[in-house]
Amino acid sequence: MRNTFHDDLDAITETLVTMTNLVKDATKDATTALLTADLALAEKVISQDDLIDSMQHELDAKTIVLLATQQPVASDLRALVTSLRMSADLERMGDMAHHIAKLARLRFPSTSVPPEASLTIEEMGRVLGLIIDKLVKIIKERDLKDAMQLAIDDDEMDKLHRKLIQSLISKDWPHGAESAIDLTLLGRYYERSADHAVSIARRVHYLVTGSYQQKLD
Amino acid sequence: MRNTFHDDLDAITETLVTMTNLVKDATKDATTALLTADLALAEKVISQDDLIDSMQHELDAKTIVLLATQQPVASDLRALVTSLRMSADLERMGDMAHHIAKLARLRFPSTSVPPEASLTIEEMGRVLGLIIDKLVKIIKERDLKDAMQLAIDDDEMDKLHRKLIQSLISKDWPHGAESAIDLTLLGRYYERSADHAVSIARRVHYLVTGSYQQKLD
Repeated sequence: MRNTFHDDLDAITETLVTMTNLVKDATKDATTALLTADLALAEKVISQDDLIDSMQHELDAKTIVLLATQQPVASDLRALVTSLRMSADLERMGDMAHHIAKLARLRFPSTSVPPEASLTIEEMGRVLGLIIDKLVKIIKERDLKDAMQLAIDDDEMDKLHRKLIQSLISKDWPHGAESAIDLTLLGRYYERSADHAVSIARRVHYLVTGSYQQKLD
Repeated sequence: MRNTFHDDLDAITETLVTMTNLVKDATKDATTALLTADLALAEKVISQDDLIDSMQHELDAKTIVLLATQQPVASDLRALVTSLRMSADLERMGDMAHHIAKLARLRFPSTSVPPEASLTIEEMGRVLGLIIDKLVKIIKERDLKDAMQLAIDDDEMDKLHRKLIQSLISKDWPHGAESAIDLTLLGRYYERSADHAVSIARRVHYLVTGSYQQKLD
């Protein structure tokens, strides 16, 4: 019986990894759709968000059944509680990719990212991609050093976010308020998605050690 | 033993109500600080956010101990799982008030809300206040009709949010990009806080019925 239960726990980790890979692809595609005004790619990200949402619901339902039937304690209990929280963070990261793709669709055939901002947005997409790559590994291998490193990668994202906002409020910004609004929201989507990744890494710390890593912000 | 456990469950509900009331006060004070450029009030909201965060941590720790020691099933299990999720939503609502107060502090002695937008922001604050008032009642009384009603109140918030963004992108907006950025973020903070309230109301639906209320967005 315990063996079946541990198979179930492994299956939960596998599902979390699958969700993280889906979020990674969605985020990458959303950024490409945004920067290249690729409507078909934006539509793909938008339609696939339901898949991430329904995976979360199924995973949570399974987790709750295991809580009820296996009456876990100690690290097994932490694994189930942590799964509920990670799935919520991953679902929100999927939402952020969805929001980015919707903005790409809204402005098609134009783009909400003018040339002055495209390098910064591209860089934010790249850093977020790296963060999510590491997140897959952190969820799989539960490496605490990698988990703590993620907060440092997130500092890079915060720097890019500040740079983006600075460029918008400079006197030379030639693209008016609508573009400033779009880029403010985009900046927030990338930054929030990275925050959720850091939050997941902290949950891995809790999962392994039973204590919370200090919140860094 | 079961009686003690049910006292513990009641205490969890009480703590959730207390957290919601703290979030209500923080949101109200943050809006006042923002609209009246009241630095002392902004500082108060900023410093009290730690209280909401630490209440969440303590509540979650208690909830996890109960999951481990009481091995609850059915509605008791749902109450504990739901508590973990509600506390996370309430913590985020506290963060939104905190963000609003930080923007009030950043622009002091000026304000990030010019006269053209102050009525809309005031109205967003009022609607969010009403939503949180209802939320206190929903958490206390677990009334499904009230819980479903909250999504309709949230439509009002979405309308105000659209109105705000429309005013920013109109050709007459005289306040430049920095102000547009501030108001874009403010609009998102109010809207997200209301979304979290709707999410909590949906969790009450799950708590009472065992099934999820359809996501409305």
